[in-house]
Amino acid sequence: MKYSAAGVDIAAATRAKELMTTAVRSTHGPAVLAGMGAFGGCFDAALALAGMQAPVLVSSTDGVGTKTLVAAALERYDTVGQDLVNHAVNDILVQGARPLFFLDYIAVAKLDPIQIAAIVSGVAAGCRAVSCALIGGETAEMPDIYAPGAFDLAGTIVGVVERADLLPRPDVTAGDAILALPSTGLHTNGYSLARRIVAQHFATEGYHARPSLLGGQTIGEALLAIHRCYLAEVNALRAVVPVKALCHITGGGIYDNLPRVLPKGMGAELVRGSWTIPPICQLLVEVGGLAESEAYHTLNMGLGMLVIVPTESVATAQKAVAEAQLVGRVTATPTVRLVDG
Amino acid sequence: MKYSAAGVDIAAATRAKELMTTAVRSTHGPAVLAGMGAFGGCFDAALALAGMQAPVLVSSTDGVGTKTLVAAALERYDTVGQDLVNHAVNDILVQGARPLFFLDYIAVAKLDPIQIAAIVSGVAAGCRAVSCALIGGETAEMPDIYAPGAFDLAGTIVGVVERADLLPRPDVTAGDAILALPSTGLHTNGYSLARRIVAQHFATEGYHARPSLLGGQTIGEALLAIHRCYLAEVNALRAVVPVKALCHITGGGIYDNLPRVLPKGMGAELVRGSWTIPPICQLLVEVGGLAESEAYHTLNMGLGMLVIVPTESVATAQKAVAEAQLVGRVTATPTVRLVDG
Repeated sequence: MKYSAAGVDIAAATRAKELMTTAVRSTHGPAVLAGMGAFGGCFDAALALAGMQAPVLVSSTDGVGTKTLVAAALERYDTVGQDLVNHAVNDILVQGARPLFFLDYIAVAKLDPIQIAAIVSGVAAGCRAVSCALIGGETAEMPDIYAPGAFDLAGTIVGVVERADLLPRPDVTAGDAILALPSTGLHTNGYSLARRIVAQHFATEGYHARPSLLGGQTIGEALLAIHRCYLAEVNALRAVVPVKALCHITGGGIYDNLPRVLPKGMGAELVRGSWTIPPICQLLVEVGGLAESEAYHTLNMGLGMLVIVPTESVATAQKAVAEAQLVGRVTATPTVRLVDG
Repeated sequence: MKYSAAGVDIAAATRAKELMTTAVRSTHGPAVLAGMGAFGGCFDAALALAGMQAPVLVSSTDGVGTKTLVAAALERYDTVGQDLVNHAVNDILVQGARPLFFLDYIAVAKLDPIQIAAIVSGVAAGCRAVSCALIGGETAEMPDIYAPGAFDLAGTIVGVVERADLLPRPDVTAGDAILALPSTGLHTNGYSLARRIVAQHFATEGYHARPSLLGGQTIGEALLAIHRCYLAEVNALRAVVPVKALCHITGGGIYDNLPRVLPKGMGAELVRGSWTIPPICQLLVEVGGLAESEAYHTLNMGLGMLVIVPTESVATAQKAVAEAQLVGRVTATPTVRLVDG
């Protein structure tokens, strides 16, 4: 009896590590004291937090859900890592934080070094783009837990913010404006629903179908569009206007996410037609026959990141970031509603 | 088409969150500024790192592997969370770090709120025991990725160490003594092999078999023994002797893990018979017919945590921690070998 007979291939794991080394190292700045090979990644807090008055570490763990199944079906492994990092960067951005370091977790039924290296390279690319160090990770080969060909991808980010700059600010008030930064598609939520709709309504061509609504793209391509990172746009906004709160629209849509950043008792009205719904969302709504409430409970519907600012700041904000659309306002009643303009 | 029809039950997720709230909150000290419900857990670094000269953050991500399948087979969901935390605490301890905060990731085919709450309560218990704050986590329901009934459990720890106290120290030299702190069993590695052996050799009774070697325990009970945390013992040792390096024996056993903490060109000799091999490891070796090299490449074989100290410190170390056994020494050749005493 050898360990390899039990479905665990240590040589493949070693090969995967070799393949990903360059990509991982490319994310390491001077604050990384120990990375690959160490039992724990070591990050120089004294250096990275130098000059801060009251640093608060902000951390989040999340995965990319069943978007991995779409990636596996299309054998496209280099983008989900960017989805993962961008999702995480946006999540801690909601608390006002900038990224410091990241750790990834990949689990597979059967370890394919090339595939793992492609996934980790995507993670590294996402990290590099926001100057975040990829200081650790784990690749687990777990026969009998994962469906054949399936993989899971999750990650943890650690960032930092000055305590005085923590978001949401307590002064969010009824009447404040809600700006939206557009999404690229589903980002990393709603994939179980999307896969079901594709399986039912595009049974023959599947992800290779090219509905006219998608303007030449296949459904698979549209579904794999990379989760957008809003760090640069939010930084540009914070430089010129008082951003009171941010809301990353993820699982549960506007209905579940907006209440997480609004003061108790407050809600929001978003005006239908004031933002662009991505074609892939339109397609899923139409073909899947989704009710509006279901669609907005499951998908971001084009609302990637919401930014709450005083009404008088809207013009300045839009001058700094042209694509920030005014989509609604904060209300004094604790419900999130879609209204006609 | 509703999202629940796609196999994702948002109400069950909400219920799971309610059930785990008390356990999660019980881990929160004054440094936790935002926990459950926030997009990112917020941890007051100014408070937690106060008084440190040159803090280094140490972070690690890992999972418990297919130990989850044994837990699922025995419907025992409250221990794997402790395995997860203890594994992580030991990993950053190897760099000299103490725990600050933790985030967990649970993925399932079908979300059962009671089961998830039991798992998270175990994570919280592990965190509480070492004063580590559980500040975030994600529970993902992912139909089609996981085998029915299977779940995956991973987590990320962030700890801190003074830069001057980082381990391993550079002064590890040939002749240094290697002490071992005993393991409780497999800890969290080798489960794919163990499950295969149980399936082949205990086909009828499976995990409920009670081989005489286990002294009344079932194989399942022995396999679920909680991964031991060595924080208290290592702190006791560091208080009285100069600990030069630590080595947590995880996947890959002594052969893959010792080289990670030894200076280039050095190796180790461990003297057969100088430590106790846990009955469950003995059983797997005997019944599975594992060669010695295979066993020590896959299992910890009783060597839970190795502690490298100067030879003249051995007596003092053993006075402080009686169960620290002298098992070998560092050598000037770059191989890890088992030798006869």
